[in-house]
Amino acid sequence: MENSLPVVGMIGAGQLARMTHQAAIALGQSLRVLAVDPGDPAAVVCSDVRPGGADDLAALRAFSRGCSAVTFDHEQVPQENLRALVADGVTVRPGPDALLHAQDKLVMRRRLDALGAAIPPFAEILSPDDLTAFVAEHGPSVVKAVRGGYDGRGVWMDPTPAEVAELLAAGTPLMVEQRVAMRRELAALVARSPFGQAAAWPVVETVQADGQCVQVLVPAPGLDPDVASAAQELALRIASELDVTGLLAVEFFESAPRSAGGAGIGAAGRLVVNELAMRPHNSGHWTIEGSRTSQFEQHLRAVLDYPLGATTPTAPAVVMANVLGAAEPVAMSTDERLHHLFARFPDVKVHLYGKTERPARKVGHVTALGGDMEQVRAKAALAAEWLSRAVWADGWDAHAGAPTLPTSGTLVG
Amino acid sequence: MENSLPVVGMIGAGQLARMTHQAAIALGQSLRVLAVDPGDPAAVVCSDVRPGGADDLAALRAFSRGCSAVTFDHEQVPQENLRALVADGVTVRPGPDALLHAQDKLVMRRRLDALGAAIPPFAEILSPDDLTAFVAEHGPSVVKAVRGGYDGRGVWMDPTPAEVAELLAAGTPLMVEQRVAMRRELAALVARSPFGQAAAWPVVETVQADGQCVQVLVPAPGLDPDVASAAQELALRIASELDVTGLLAVEFFESAPRSAGGAGIGAAGRLVVNELAMRPHNSGHWTIEGSRTSQFEQHLRAVLDYPLGATTPTAPAVVMANVLGAAEPVAMSTDERLHHLFARFPDVKVHLYGKTERPARKVGHVTALGGDMEQVRAKAALAAEWLSRAVWADGWDAHAGAPTLPTSGTLVG
Repeated sequence: MENSLPVVGMIGAGQLARMTHQAAIALGQSLRVLAVDPGDPAAVVCSDVRPGGADDLAALRAFSRGCSAVTFDHEQVPQENLRALVADGVTVRPGPDALLHAQDKLVMRRRLDALGAAIPPFAEILSPDDLTAFVAEHGPSVVKAVRGGYDGRGVWMDPTPAEVAELLAAGTPLMVEQRVAMRRELAALVARSPFGQAAAWPVVETVQADGQCVQVLVPAPGLDPDVASAAQELALRIASELDVTGLLAVEFFESAPRSAGGAGIGAAGRLVVNELAMRPHNSGHWTIEGSRTSQFEQHLRAVLDYPLGATTPTAPAVVMANVLGAAEPVAMSTDERLHHLFARFPDVKVHLYGKTERPARKVGHVTALGGDMEQVRAKAALAAEWLSRAVWADGWDAHAGAPTLPTSGTLVG
Repeated sequence: MENSLPVVGMIGAGQLARMTHQAAIALGQSLRVLAVDPGDPAAVVCSDVRPGGADDLAALRAFSRGCSAVTFDHEQVPQENLRALVADGVTVRPGPDALLHAQDKLVMRRRLDALGAAIPPFAEILSPDDLTAFVAEHGPSVVKAVRGGYDGRGVWMDPTPAEVAELLAAGTPLMVEQRVAMRRELAALVARSPFGQAAAWPVVETVQADGQCVQVLVPAPGLDPDVASAAQELALRIASELDVTGLLAVEFFESAPRSAGGAGIGAAGRLVVNELAMRPHNSGHWTIEGSRTSQFEQHLRAVLDYPLGATTPTAPAVVMANVLGAAEPVAMSTDERLHHLFARFPDVKVHLYGKTERPARKVGHVTALGGDMEQVRAKAALAAEWLSRAVWADGWDAHAGAPTLPTSGTLVG
């Protein structure tokens, strides 16, 4: 076997690691993953799986031995462990100093504020009085856990001082920010290498439901080109200022017209930064088919300091839709649903993560590409909905939607 | 983990199995491979690797247990073993009756002849006299081993009767065919499911050197559309008549104008069938980026009887070039060569197989896509050449070809 190629170690074995392994294979590599559970999405498809969690330094040290670079598919890696690996001489990308900004919302807000980036008014909360004072000045507000929240967890809308007192008493570090009169959410995904090369994909719209992303529209429909460029430039600047190596996803709120004239990006001050992520990101899954270089290949190229790949889109309109676990038990197996979906949409690309279903859990995604955003979006939404629930399937012929002539060339390219 | 999804077992763990695993991951599966060597290209990236060779029935039986379908990445699987698996109740796709036509050139020629497909004049050789008689009637001829030849092996141009006697004495079953005054080689790749659904990709030109394919041009430049359609229709007909399940690659000779008017496909009788392959094929590697559905995903869909995927091309011109092992030892490591290649061509896609280099051995391939065939071909050829030998690299700056501004958006999509 080829011995001269690098080994990347990824802490975490979820769907992001699973899809990164697919990209690693093309580059002649085999991704090494640190898995808490042998049934994790990446653990079941990778050959080099090491047991352990991000909080187990001994496991991290054994895992890192022999890795050209160590990276992660989630932010829940204790700073002290990353710093211990760096002290051991392990190449950790992004480094702990950069990653801290994706782990600690208060550190991130303060740094972005210092950089002059547009963010909502915010404050640390050490007592219920801090909340009362902030709300008196800034109106409707959202309280967030400084660390550990994601997909809507660790977020409280207009909590009472009593609730805040309870959270503080439980040891949850808190911050508050003004609630943005939001029109929609956008994301700018960029990559940066240790050499300093950077690359950006088009700004996307991330459609949210119940606090998590359900669709990604590429490019963000109707977005002012100047605002899009400014968002990309800010993401590239943050990556450089924070010395990010690998991927950086910057999530934005686009505020409603009525709050135009604020401090945000663009003529009408419409964009403010919400979150940062430093890893392959749900807002970039569309790049597997929709960009010349996928976010997974790009992350590997960046953490290994290879020159980055072209981010050119492969279609005028690309839509990624998450496949969510059904709210109620579904009679039809995933395999049956796949039959129906393939029959109905021969051109939709499916990515399943090998996860057991739980209500609203991301178990996969679909990607549709084409010339017209509305048509592409409708197709992706339907495909994801069907794969999630198959509510439509009663008595339906699995092959009805597909060419069925024995030797037909109906799919002739 | 997801339990309701099928398990495909692939006999053989070469680069075809390696790339099939990448496609299996997206479908929620994990490819099971039967590997002769733990260092085989697929064995080093797959989680479900079973030891053994295609000639070891006990290993095949253990391997097949629990597989939804068993397929292969090469034709060297003994018929008796496949039939034993079928007798055990294993789902083998394609089945032994179909595969025989990709294993035995004489059986294939006779069947295609019976189907009225255009093939060169041929004959079995049981003695040197058979060759003498054939050459007297048909002129310059090529002798082939009836079984086991590939990439130019098992082929002899105008051998002497003495050489033929020697081969026969060594127990090599032989056949002879008229040498086609060839202009170029083409290939038609199709897929067929047990349900009977079929799909075809555009006909491609396979550029040969030293008896093996070095480039694939998509679509075949300057090919008469009627001839292309006839080639696709013939491939679909062969797949149906032979009851092929999975992929079928039909390799064609396009004869030179001077021999026009023969029995071949097209107004001028220009195409004759050369070989059949029933598995993912080198002539289809371009589909990973160049088609909405790759040959690897399509093979899995076909052997599992899922509805097939769309074969629509993603660019007007696609070129795949094989990366061949250097003729002489190369000082620069594969990793260094990758750095240079990525810097020079940010939009070329690389696929490395994790194989040790040997002269002319296929160790990977590159794919370039674009609007102009000549430009795309030049780029792919250069990329493959550089990755193969890096003869150009002396003193060259690995990053010179790529954007290097610290926060530059030069790769902004």
